Amino acid sequence: MKTYLDCMPCFFRQALGAARMASNDENIHRRVLNSVASLIPELPLDVTPPEIAQQVYHLVANITGNNDPYYKAKRDDNQLALSLYSYLKEAIASSGDPLLTACKLAVAGNSIDMGPQSDYGDLNSIVQSALVSPLSIDDYEEFKRDIEKSLHILYLGDNAGEIVFDRILIEELRQIKDFDIYFVVREGPIINDATLDDAISVGIDRVAKVISSGSDAPATILSWCSPQLQELYHSADIIIAKGQGNYESLSEESGNIFFFLKAKCPIAAELLGVKIGDFILKKQVIQNRKEEGK
Amino acid sequence: MKTYLDCMPCFFRQALGAARMASNDENIHRRVLNSVASLIPELPLDVTPPEIAQQVYHLVANITGNNDPYYKAKRDDNQLALSLYSYLKEAIASSGDPLLTACKLAVAGNSIDMGPQSDYGDLNSIVQSALVSPLSIDDYEEFKRDIEKSLHILYLGDNAGEIVFDRILIEELRQIKDFDIYFVVREGPIINDATLDDAISVGIDRVAKVISSGSDAPATILSWCSPQLQELYHSADIIIAKGQGNYESLSEESGNIFFFLKAKCPIAAELLGVKIGDFILKKQVIQNRKEEGK
Repeated sequence: MKTYLDCMPCFFRQALGAARMASNDENIHRRVLNSVASLIPELPLDVTPPEIAQQVYHLVANITGNNDPYYKAKRDDNQLALSLYSYLKEAIASSGDPLLTACKLAVAGNSIDMGPQSDYGDLNSIVQSALVSPLSIDDYEEFKRDIEKSLHILYLGDNAGEIVFDRILIEELRQIKDFDIYFVVREGPIINDATLDDAISVGIDRVAKVISSGSDAPATILSWCSPQLQELYHSADIIIAKGQGNYESLSEESGNIFFFLKAKCPIAAELLGVKIGDFILKKQVIQNRKEEGK
Repeated sequence: MKTYLDCMPCFFRQALGAARMASNDENIHRRVLNSVASLIPELPLDVTPPEIAQQVYHLVANITGNNDPYYKAKRDDNQLALSLYSYLKEAIASSGDPLLTACKLAVAGNSIDMGPQSDYGDLNSIVQSALVSPLSIDDYEEFKRDIEKSLHILYLGDNAGEIVFDRILIEELRQIKDFDIYFVVREGPIINDATLDDAISVGIDRVAKVISSGSDAPATILSWCSPQLQELYHSADIIIAKGQGNYESLSEESGNIFFFLKAKCPIAAELLGVKIGDFILKKQVIQNRKEEGK
């Protein structure tokens, strides 16, 4: 997905939110906004929004001198989600289709996002709603079919807190067979995205091989990823891509991708044909474009 | 109310909305955003948001070559609201307290606003909801008491379409006594704010003396208003100020002002202690500050 002019006000809003997390000094907040303003005329629109977001968040880090303003929020969200672990496991075990329930909860976990929204609401209510509501785009049957044919899974994580829900989905997948699963985190802190420390703190390393994307972009921008990640991407039987950032960066890439996300902005919602706030499990439509182009 | 850093992303969003109303050329939209970006470092925060909004909308007009991008939207909203005229009159006449109902509808009419929101929703639903819902801030009893003691009313209008609701409130006021009423419109087009043409097209000139503020700011910035308007402001027994813009520009001015508005942004809502979307009839708390300072 390319960057839209509508993303520009949102970059400002996100920069202000991150600046406030990083510093209490309003003069610094103003300097951040002025610097984002100076970026605007140069910003290309033919790149994906996370590529620009990375620049914006780096700028916030440079000006505020704080490169991890969401450190405490991430730790709190990991703890909060872990406190629901037993409840979520029980809800899955007692449901009619445990894998479907785990998928829906993994989508719901994507609500925990500090970028496009400043306050994600009450996690308990989000979970309760997810358990009883249908997905707005529901490619679960294709996911289930493709999972059964797969061995190598590449799982592209998104946010702290959310990764507890990812761990639970991985545990559910392991009930099916002994998959080879790589769980991908960001190379360094950006927004509230999960890094290696987050993954270890919620125990994902006990159920999957955790690796860095090789980049601190808040998404999977393939050309910026490490050679190892690119190799894993191309050799995976199935790719689970969490979050709107990964949808934005991969929506025009080929691969057997399943996007698990909450739609968080009007542009992404319109492209997906859903409403803001809708929960989505969507199979990538471009399966072999790169191969066809060869 | 001063300008907050949170207003900056909103100015961008509003500029983009107005640019799209004025032109279909995305290159022009981009030029508008780049120009707003170049304004940011210079913007003072100790002025009210409508003072900056005026600059932003002038910039959109200059770049697009269209100084009235909301012309058709305004005409349509005037027509739409006029089509409800008989229904609204009947609803007021059959209500337990016709003046209260007319006040609530005048507040609800402030929903018709293209600035802080791009789509105001369905007017019929808004009216139905207003008829049965309480105001979130309800100083109606003080308004009623003050109206009974008043003769000279200054009525600061806001948007096209909304002015039909204002006409109806004025007609209801005229049931009480033969007030001297001045209805104020903007000097020239800005956003979807009502101008003299709008006021005449919905017949306000039949129930009040229509005058221009002397400025095309999207609010009543007293120092920018004509000497005549300033004189009317200071001599009025009561001032009815419609809309969030007038609240933003007058919230720190003295005067016997009653603000009739829908809260449309998080900052104004927080200052008012209400939620976004709430309907408000609020008496100004600063009654005599200027006099005290003398």
